[in-house]
Amino acid sequence: MVDEALHDVVILGAGPAGLAAAIYTTRSRLDTVVLDAQGGGGQLAIIDRIENYPGFDKAVTGMELFEAMRRQAEGFGVQVGFDQAQKLEADDASVTVIGDAGRYRARALIVATGARHRELCIPSEERLKGRGVSYCATCDGNFFAKKPVAVIGGGDTAVKEAIYLSRIVEKVYLVHRRDRLRAEALLQERIRERPNVEFCFDSVVDEIEGTDAVSGVRLKNTKTGELRRIAVEGVFVFVGILPNAEFLSGHVDLDPLGFVRTDPRMRTRHPRIFAAGDVRADSVRQIGAAVGDGITAAVTIQEMLDTETPPRRCGPECAI
Amino acid sequence: MVDEALHDVVILGAGPAGLAAAIYTTRSRLDTVVLDAQGGGGQLAIIDRIENYPGFDKAVTGMELFEAMRRQAEGFGVQVGFDQAQKLEADDASVTVIGDAGRYRARALIVATGARHRELCIPSEERLKGRGVSYCATCDGNFFAKKPVAVIGGGDTAVKEAIYLSRIVEKVYLVHRRDRLRAEALLQERIRERPNVEFCFDSVVDEIEGTDAVSGVRLKNTKTGELRRIAVEGVFVFVGILPNAEFLSGHVDLDPLGFVRTDPRMRTRHPRIFAAGDVRADSVRQIGAAVGDGITAAVTIQEMLDTETPPRRCGPECAI
Repeated sequence: MVDEALHDVVILGAGPAGLAAAIYTTRSRLDTVVLDAQGGGGQLAIIDRIENYPGFDKAVTGMELFEAMRRQAEGFGVQVGFDQAQKLEADDASVTVIGDAGRYRARALIVATGARHRELCIPSEERLKGRGVSYCATCDGNFFAKKPVAVIGGGDTAVKEAIYLSRIVEKVYLVHRRDRLRAEALLQERIRERPNVEFCFDSVVDEIEGTDAVSGVRLKNTKTGELRRIAVEGVFVFVGILPNAEFLSGHVDLDPLGFVRTDPRMRTRHPRIFAAGDVRADSVRQIGAAVGDGITAAVTIQEMLDTETPPRRCGPECAI
Repeated sequence: MVDEALHDVVILGAGPAGLAAAIYTTRSRLDTVVLDAQGGGGQLAIIDRIENYPGFDKAVTGMELFEAMRRQAEGFGVQVGFDQAQKLEADDASVTVIGDAGRYRARALIVATGARHRELCIPSEERLKGRGVSYCATCDGNFFAKKPVAVIGGGDTAVKEAIYLSRIVEKVYLVHRRDRLRAEALLQERIRERPNVEFCFDSVVDEIEGTDAVSGVRLKNTKTGELRRIAVEGVFVFVGILPNAEFLSGHVDLDPLGFVRTDPRMRTRHPRIFAAGDVRADSVRQIGAAVGDGITAAVTIQEMLDTETPPRRCGPECAI
């Protein structure tokens, strides 16, 4: 599809940052295109339990929160299209996104493409993906009911997912390279209350064992070099995230890990490219923070387009 | 009260930014003190109708959203205390807040004191405050049922409040100094649909008339200098906001209007003072953005205290 129209805003990603931005740009009657490579929700959609998004005093699932945000956005006219950005063309007046399915040109771009899980990057992980190696407990946890699993990582996500799994599986080995967890204290308390979680500190995965399915994990002690084998049928990897920002290369400043650098108003180096949510270098990777980023980007763009010559396209309301 | 304990965090303000921060710091088991000069909610508590806080696909009142955030925060152990900061003492190791009722010392301070309405600064405004001059339609609108009122301002707040008032009062004169509204397009459309709103553009308030109560407003045309009198019994002023940041003077960088300058992680010039929400120079003054600011400040502080020597005080969970 060739979309030669000049839109006001293209938003890439329909997770919390992208939907929040879209709610604001459409309420401002900016002609907005929202694209998502997977239909929306991002990492939000697979979260089992959310207690810390302000305004919800009862826990909700990620899917529930995503659906509420999507219904709200749709109420203001937001439509989420399917496409994945591969490349950008940008000049002083506009940005063109080249996706798998089409080209989209706009006076401003919000990159809210989020992040994806980091992998361990060992050959056995690649070979056993989908055969016991997983990156999503809410997606795959039930395959391991009453079986032993390993969770790799020590941050918020690893501990949250380990707690979730501990209610389903026989036993969780929590494998972390440091001598203590990095997760918030409340999560640390909760996981210590689980009777079937064993902590393997100062440990990294040396190899995942198994031919057609995972049969165990070989751990290496980072202090002593000692090897130890644990018998597990599932391995859940939560060792950090990587930004979905490769297509931006050359247009904006990235940090050493590839996250997009912005100022407090979500501006990148390019005056028409903004970033919001987990893809940002300064993001704290929380739903509420991503929402705030999206709103800030949207308001900043609205102010920019309102003061441009020619002014942004809009309906008869501009006559006021 | 002299509170000589060294807390982990003091949060000033229990609006959206302060409560979001408190949810996060208490979940991280940081010893947190939250203080509010009025009991909490800030500007949020007086908003009539909120449609653009992401996650709520049905409109809520500001009070409902505030109560939900407060219940949620209380569920994690947050207690909001009453006090108003007057002064700070800060050194490399801690910040002490000197309030009307006590002193509070902590290793980190989050300033989430928000903003207050700007006034017209004419003598008749001061004289007729509470006698027809108001800064809150949801608070005072009902006093003017079936009577004519003037709303001063052309931004989001002025237009929102004018729409609200138009359903209660006989007639709304919307007085704005420019030749068009500044509010988002959706609000502009909605106010144009109201049959009892008359726009007075290019107009400023020259004088508010009345002795014991408002009887009218004298408007001056900014282009022609012409004077015109409108007969109204209420005057609602929405001409911008001012930061509640006077007590910070000397400790952080402020912009020319007195709002607090921060980096994208909510750090001010002082390493132990953070700012979040409407009091920030780069804030877009939206609930969702204030929430994001609060979360970002809380996570940044948590990371800072976790890497300090001595580490932050915490319970047995730290043994993990």
